[in-house]
Amino acid sequence: MRKILIIGAGRSASSLIKYLLDKSEAENLFVTIGDLSEDLAKKKTGNHKNSRAISFDVFNADQRKQEIQQADVVISMLPAHMHIEVAKDCVLFKKHMVTASYISAEMQALDAVAKENNIVLMNEIGLDPGIDHMSAMKIMDEIKSEGGKIILFESFCGGLVAPESDNNLWNYKFTWNPRNVVLAGQGGAAKFIQEGKYKYIPYNKLFRRTEFLEVDGFGRFEAYANRDSLKYREIYGLDDTKTCYRGTIRRVGFSKAWDVFVQLGMTDDTFIVDDSETMSNREFVNLFLPYHPTDSVEIKFRHQLKIDQDDVIWDKLLELDLLSKTAISGLKNATPAQMLEKILADKWTLQSDDKDMIVMYHKFGYEINGEEKQIDSTMVCLGDDQTYTAMAKTVGLPVAIAALKILNGEITTAGVQLPISKEVYEPILKELEAYGVLFKEFEVPYFGYNYSM
Amino acid sequence: MRKILIIGAGRSASSLIKYLLDKSEAENLFVTIGDLSEDLAKKKTGNHKNSRAISFDVFNADQRKQEIQQADVVISMLPAHMHIEVAKDCVLFKKHMVTASYISAEMQALDAVAKENNIVLMNEIGLDPGIDHMSAMKIMDEIKSEGGKIILFESFCGGLVAPESDNNLWNYKFTWNPRNVVLAGQGGAAKFIQEGKYKYIPYNKLFRRTEFLEVDGFGRFEAYANRDSLKYREIYGLDDTKTCYRGTIRRVGFSKAWDVFVQLGMTDDTFIVDDSETMSNREFVNLFLPYHPTDSVEIKFRHQLKIDQDDVIWDKLLELDLLSKTAISGLKNATPAQMLEKILADKWTLQSDDKDMIVMYHKFGYEINGEEKQIDSTMVCLGDDQTYTAMAKTVGLPVAIAALKILNGEITTAGVQLPISKEVYEPILKELEAYGVLFKEFEVPYFGYNYSM
Repeated sequence: MRKILIIGAGRSASSLIKYLLDKSEAENLFVTIGDLSEDLAKKKTGNHKNSRAISFDVFNADQRKQEIQQADVVISMLPAHMHIEVAKDCVLFKKHMVTASYISAEMQALDAVAKENNIVLMNEIGLDPGIDHMSAMKIMDEIKSEGGKIILFESFCGGLVAPESDNNLWNYKFTWNPRNVVLAGQGGAAKFIQEGKYKYIPYNKLFRRTEFLEVDGFGRFEAYANRDSLKYREIYGLDDTKTCYRGTIRRVGFSKAWDVFVQLGMTDDTFIVDDSETMSNREFVNLFLPYHPTDSVEIKFRHQLKIDQDDVIWDKLLELDLLSKTAISGLKNATPAQMLEKILADKWTLQSDDKDMIVMYHKFGYEINGEEKQIDSTMVCLGDDQTYTAMAKTVGLPVAIAALKILNGEITTAGVQLPISKEVYEPILKELEAYGVLFKEFEVPYFGYNYSM
Repeated sequence: MRKILIIGAGRSASSLIKYLLDKSEAENLFVTIGDLSEDLAKKKTGNHKNSRAISFDVFNADQRKQEIQQADVVISMLPAHMHIEVAKDCVLFKKHMVTASYISAEMQALDAVAKENNIVLMNEIGLDPGIDHMSAMKIMDEIKSEGGKIILFESFCGGLVAPESDNNLWNYKFTWNPRNVVLAGQGGAAKFIQEGKYKYIPYNKLFRRTEFLEVDGFGRFEAYANRDSLKYREIYGLDDTKTCYRGTIRRVGFSKAWDVFVQLGMTDDTFIVDDSETMSNREFVNLFLPYHPTDSVEIKFRHQLKIDQDDVIWDKLLELDLLSKTAISGLKNATPAQMLEKILADKWTLQSDDKDMIVMYHKFGYEINGEEKQIDSTMVCLGDDQTYTAMAKTVGLPVAIAALKILNGEITTAGVQLPISKEVYEPILKELEAYGVLFKEFEVPYFGYNYSM
């Protein structure tokens, strides 16, 4: 039997594991799932006869080398910074490897030796990065093959709550790492290019310069800019493209309300709040408001942020119990960002019957025969349940499909790769359709700019 | 003769050098002034017979050791991070040393050996830090000696343009390092404590939460919070003090207009602007505004920042030629902060006949005999000209006076010191009065809080 080693059995591995086990008979696969928690690994195998669950510590070099040596292809679903030791061993023992993470400089450094050893180190083949690369390159290659020239590329993605579970004022729940949501946009200005002009948005304006997106059957969304849209021009060969912009999708109104936290300073992760453990939500809010012996936290808050009393933002804040005297943080030596995450998690954690939703939206502007045209492409994927979430499907399935295609010699280009060549994206996108990951394309008039960006 | 070595002959050394040379006959002093530029050092000596100007490189260990060995007291006016090698040699050769800089961890580490060798390493004895420490400790020690308990300490300082030279809409010119002005407030939330409540102000709100200050004869000023007011509680022994706040003084209206730069993202020093060299001021502004094919930079700017066309802020921006198509940056690979600094320097550089002004304002709240009282203390120092500026006087004179008093055995406490003991502050403040650095004290009603903080 052909042996696949999966390292990491967390949330994003469920659909990946199921895909490979479902195919294990027909494809003659034996799947080893290693996780720090053997229990978690076992649970994900469902005692499938072609599987083995092991306790696995990526920092245990002996075990790591031994398991990798026995595998034909290795899938790492670990956090991005943990891939490199696995990758080095894969190169050493000439094993293919697949990850859903961005290519790090360390990973890229293995390119030459991976090519020498004729092994594939495939990365960025989850959702974002992953499905975004593949679905964008497919359409851009088509446009180019017809003689078109790409003049605009905008791409948006968001992990949201499915409409049937969308029951709070923010139209949002955590479907992924909450910490990343709280810290989103920090660490430098968002950079992009629009109609040939470089544009920079500082963090304090990021959530106020959103773009609207309509998705057929799902209504209106908004998007705020990702930090670095410029690097995609290089990756996609779009050096002459006048507009290149990537963003994160939320339901309309989320960003304007989120900006309240940014403006107050609640997303700051750089200092520890004194007495954070015993602090009520109300006291937490008051940290960021001027002192007054009698004025209420409410009036100070509204005045500082210029929130009218009948503004729905106020209701959104109250829904989070943000002004509660009895909701206590309980977090020792916490930063404001950690305290905010706790407050949000109390309200935004998916319930056992909640479903999630992934939305992706691309815009391709192009010139052909002297005309300017535009194609929009949208994808919505709904989660099945709390195990086979939309996130688990869209992250895990492309990884699983790629791993099997590498094993079957259908993807062969050696070296450190990402899925932007037709050899890779075409069969994978095709197969994803059967799993409900389906892009719809529309011709729309070319507009060329968006005021709000 | 007794030998004083002054390292660094820059702007802040003028009054320091003049003081010591003026006293050189009576006090039997010989002053060596070392600077990377021998010319600059020479110019500052005015060919005084008790002086010697040398080309001096602090990183030349042989020269450094030789000169320090020959001195009785060493004054370092170098940038703060360059003091440590000088300090180590002073300890080695048992020479006293004086600086106007904050005590670094490395400097503090020399405390024990300095005490063993019975030498004084006096630091933080310029303006801020320096005169602020001395003038605050004097009043607080007086209050305590009368049985009072300090419950509020607020302290403000600003380097401004003198009223006679105050001829722009910002009521501001650069009297010190412009880069520090552009980057002021960055690197973390401002922290202070007010009526026992910790308060944090994020950068994006820093210039909108100002406090007004009235100075007799000079009118109204405003102040925004410094980054860390909390450490002063420790230094001054104010652990029980309910309010501790430090701020930077500007003329009223400066901060609200400055906030425009913050909100746009123009003070960002973390990325390089593409094509910065050839960029006009107008193009620079447009980097931070949404793209539009026909809307003017003016309307986008006003809309983004909500600036009415008759708002004086708009006139302040126009006064800087901020929307000029012909004013070109000329800076290669510059950050937004560097480009903004250039635009401001073109307008805010002191002219040859301009004078500067230092303003300091302290508030001391205290309880005595069951009553709450308050003393405010203010100091305004005006520059004489472009050499003996208010900044040079207030930074350099305390350093000079301290150095001479150490030499004369009037300041004797060994170790790494700052000027918070009566032995030090009392005679120095007294002598500073003769040079126009004079504090006025007022009893005012205790208020205890300030809404805007």
